[in-house]
Amino acid sequence: MRVVRVARGAAPDGGDLIRDWNVSTSLSGDLAAASLRGDNSHVLPTDSQKNKVYALARDMGPVEPETFGLSLAAFFVSSQEPITRARIEVEEYGWSPIGATGYSFARSGDLVRTTVVTVDAALGASVVSGIRDLVVLNTTASEFWGYPRDAYTTLPETRDRMLATAVNAQWRYRPDVAACPDAGWGAAFASAKAALVAAFTGTYSSSLQQTLYAMGSAVLADVPSACEVRLELPNKHHYLVDLAPFGLVNDREVYNAGDRPYGLIEGHVLADDAPDAGLAWT
Amino acid sequence: MRVVRVARGAAPDGGDLIRDWNVSTSLSGDLAAASLRGDNSHVLPTDSQKNKVYALARDMGPVEPETFGLSLAAFFVSSQEPITRARIEVEEYGWSPIGATGYSFARSGDLVRTTVVTVDAALGASVVSGIRDLVVLNTTASEFWGYPRDAYTTLPETRDRMLATAVNAQWRYRPDVAACPDAGWGAAFASAKAALVAAFTGTYSSSLQQTLYAMGSAVLADVPSACEVRLELPNKHHYLVDLAPFGLVNDREVYNAGDRPYGLIEGHVLADDAPDAGLAWT
Amino acid sequence: MRVVRVARGAAPDGGDLIRDWNVSTSLSGDLAAASLRGDNSHVLPTDSQKNKVYALARDMGPVEPETFGLSLAAFFVSSQEPITRARIEVEEYGWSPIGATGYSFARSGDLVRTTVVTVDAALGASVVSGIRDLVVLNTTASEFWGYPRDAYTTLPETRDRMLATAVNAQWRYRPDVAACPDAGWGAAFASAKAALVAAFTGTYSSSLQQTLYAMGSAVLADVPSACEVRLELPNKHHYLVDLAPFGLVNDREVYNAGDRPYGLIEGHVLADDAPDAGLAWT
Amino acid sequence: MRVVRVARGAAPDGGDLIRDWNVSTSLSGDLAAASLRGDNSHVLPTDSQKNKVYALARDMGPVEPETFGLSLAAFFVSSQEPITRARIEVEEYGWSPIGATGYSFARSGDLVRTTVVTVDAALGASVVSGIRDLVVLNTTASEFWGYPRDAYTTLPETRDRMLATAVNAQWRYRPDVAACPDAGWGAAFASAKAALVAAFTGTYSSSLQQTLYAMGSAVLADVPSACEVRLELPNKHHYLVDLAPFGLVNDREVYNAGDRPYGLIEGHVLADDAPDAGLAWT
Repeated sequence: MRVVRVARGAAPDGGDLIRDWNVSTSLSGDLAAASLRGDNSHVLPTDSQKNKVYALARDMGPVEPETFGLSLAAFFVSSQEPITRARIEVEEYGWSPIGATGYSFARSGDLVRTTVVTVDAALGASVVSGIRDLVVLNTTASEFWGYPRDAYTTLPETRDRMLATAVNAQWRYRPDVAACPDAGWGAAFASAKAALVAAFTGTYSSSLQQTLYAMGSAVLADVPSACEVRLELPNKHHYLVDLAPFGLVNDREVYNAGDRPYGLIEGHVLADDAPDAGLAWT
Repeated sequence: MRVVRVARGAAPDGGDLIRDWNVSTSLSGDLAAASLRGDNSHVLPTDSQKNKVYALARDMGPVEPETFGLSLAAFFVSSQEPITRARIEVEEYGWSPIGATGYSFARSGDLVRTTVVTVDAALGASVVSGIRDLVVLNTTASEFWGYPRDAYTTLPETRDRMLATAVNAQWRYRPDVAACPDAGWGAAFASAKAALVAAFTGTYSSSLQQTLYAMGSAVLADVPSACEVRLELPNKHHYLVDLAPFGLVNDREVYNAGDRPYGLIEGHVLADDAPDAGLAWT
Repeated sequence: MRVVRVARGAAPDGGDLIRDWNVSTSLSGDLAAASLRGDNSHVLPTDSQKNKVYALARDMGPVEPETFGLSLAAFFVSSQEPITRARIEVEEYGWSPIGATGYSFARSGDLVRTTVVTVDAALGASVVSGIRDLVVLNTTASEFWGYPRDAYTTLPETRDRMLATAVNAQWRYRPDVAACPDAGWGAAFASAKAALVAAFTGTYSSSLQQTLYAMGSAVLADVPSACEVRLELPNKHHYLVDLAPFGLVNDREVYNAGDRPYGLIEGHVLADDAPDAGLAWT
Repeated sequence: MRVVRVARGAAPDGGDLIRDWNVSTSLSGDLAAASLRGDNSHVLPTDSQKNKVYALARDMGPVEPETFGLSLAAFFVSSQEPITRARIEVEEYGWSPIGATGYSFARSGDLVRTTVVTVDAALGASVVSGIRDLVVLNTTASEFWGYPRDAYTTLPETRDRMLATAVNAQWRYRPDVAACPDAGWGAAFASAKAALVAAFTGTYSSSLQQTLYAMGSAVLADVPSACEVRLELPNKHHYLVDLAPFGLVNDREVYNAGDRPYGLIEGHVLADDAPDAGLAWT
């Protein structure tokens, strides 16, 4: 559900703060009676869940989404006996102040901050945070050659191509961190985002696979509280247009941006001492 | 990638047959060299994969998507030594003949037939097929009451509500079936779809959870080659509009269709003798 | 706004009838005070408009969308002195009965029935109805050659191509028809749809322009109450894949369906005796 | 079609420049032969149009989209005798440099810069430019009261509400400006955008209609080459959540962001000396 939390005058300069979230809740537990006999005594309505989200947003103020998710999940597991596990997803949309009013904002781009918090009555809490739809592009410093050639290979090798992707990254926090209500989530997000961008721009790329590995490693290096990173990088192809039929040279100037990302490169990078993931990714 | 396979004159009445697919390929294996050193000798380009899809569609003709996926996955695993696993997803879009030309068709609705085929060098093949975006609605025969009441309960109980959802179902085939190139996939799809619809219309519903369980059970009953069903049913709420302020009675006649499905009901139904899922769902 | 009107037991067989609409309202008139001085005494809130839509749906029952739009528009213009013109758009989504319950339905495909009704205090009523997103395809009976060749022509001529489009058609009713609350709107829609399909399947096509003209003419021929037809036909290209590099012949069997319809063919066909369009299209 | 033009090393700091466009072309003229007889001698294929776009992007370099559109439109009208009018639409997507490489970029948000150029053999050129999807929000300084009350009024008056919209604005340039290949289009866009934002943040709003008028007037004041502004402002409602059932006060802190913008406020502001619009808006 979409909840916008305004904290009036709470910014350092006296302006307002905004948290703009899409919150999804998923509860599991003993639902056999509902499934088999239509007995709803264990089914907490989504409407009640929604009300709790709004009330908790009121109570907690403009906290980090991870902090909110941990509190919300713990509430469901502790207050409803049949519910043994709660999974809370939050997508956060960014807003930047505009003008000098203190109350005016503009949506800041496509990118979305995400978190998935799981609290299980027996296994405890896990937190996976991430970033989605950060679209980046290098106009050069990318090659692709040396790949295997079979009967279906027609792709020419290239020593200079455009490399573009929409970064979808998630990092899993260490269990001791996930147990803290406020473990510096905002600073960790900022570090992870900066690490992803720095690795993308700073890696001379032989393949998107190599870039992916560099990006994942950079997050582990710069965010010590994270122990695993998963990345999905669609290869947003930019095809150099053949202008020879029109008597023109096209020396890496005019590209056709493909509509469909053929090739979604997926991978994960694990710290050497990463504890077991438990329920974090499920 | 989007591939349309026309089989000229192959229909029983002498008209054309069409298979309209979106095929996605995902290969895994030993990619350490690519990730760490930018050595691409183990990286089969997506472009080569795409070429193989088109060539195979030419060779195999208008086969069932499961048959196509099994053959494609086996090709990648057997022909590329570093590749140990291939996962093929096919979405099939339906077309119905129109007119009497034999060559004219109209897209038949939103619903999509899906399949996910996984072939692993060590663990063999698995097949999960499904249906997506089948939107159904009962104007009555649905109640919702008897749920737990806490401090955040405001939802009134109802003995008669509209029930609507977009059916997203997947069923896992038994391993011996998944090993066959052609195991009656088309007939199984038709049976599963009919079972889902019959269970939705035929279940007097105390909750969407109960309806979900009935739908999953119906697929297991009517498709013996399936051993597990997973369902995602968004609760597409239809709110009875309060017309009392305007002096009007609204006896289940005028509804506001909600834009956002608050509440995604998820569940799975497993046959008693279902073998281990292995890689099927991953 | 989304309104679903259920008429219990109103179908010929005793089952329910459903009208599922997205209604948009646009009112114009003297709004200078609001724009210049923030005086809202002439601004009818959209919330009040929404309430009227629900109340009118209750009163009128499951009528044709044109009938509903004419009544709604007339209400706004007659009841609010500063409002001199109302434009009502209705999109109708289809539902087909499933099973034998009388209360179960499935969404019937992508295609949308549309109407735009305009009532002006001085100029009277106009009605433009239409169909959207009817996706059709001929696997043959389409050529494209004889076009002008300039320095930028690389397209090879073809004597046999696939022709696919998403039909977006609107037809304007004659003013005397638009003045009737119920002028057989449902039958006219059915005739127009049938005419569009018959012309698409029955026209041996030298270009999508030619097909468009045939479709528009067919609607005028079969729907005498219509006097003008406007069509937008995106050219949904299907490219024959070159399989020669793999030693395969591709005799019109394997196509790549383009993601983006390069080329939107637009045109309109006017009856010889068509009266002036007035406000119908604005 | 999607064309990305890279100008290597052309930025003031020696980095690359990028223009990322979606270009649509629409040609009109004497197409009777094609429509009636399937004679394509007057039908310039979209494929040839596409080729010309790429070739012209190569020739012209990273120019403003208006400059590109004027040149492209003039080419079609002057080089193809049967074509009497060309309409070119360009959407430009923004990219911002990231890192210090000179070749790395990130997509800069949702907002899109647009232009529509029309060149008619008889009537000359017109240019309409704009901005789309600039999402802005004021957390206060907005009221809504004093509106007419009828039998369908249930909306409570408010002296303090959140005001949010997605700005879709287009401004028409004066004909003498539209005749120039390069009339400072980039600077005019920057001024118009700044004027829109300043008017949105700086207007104490009695209605979105009043804000719209202020925004349009600001563009006319700050961009002297523009003579007409059209705006579409969807009212993105944020509803204050009622927390009283849970014993909580909600003093403008927690809002439910509506999914659907009920109410699209449309309006245009015309300079006193604005010349006739001709074909600009059609």
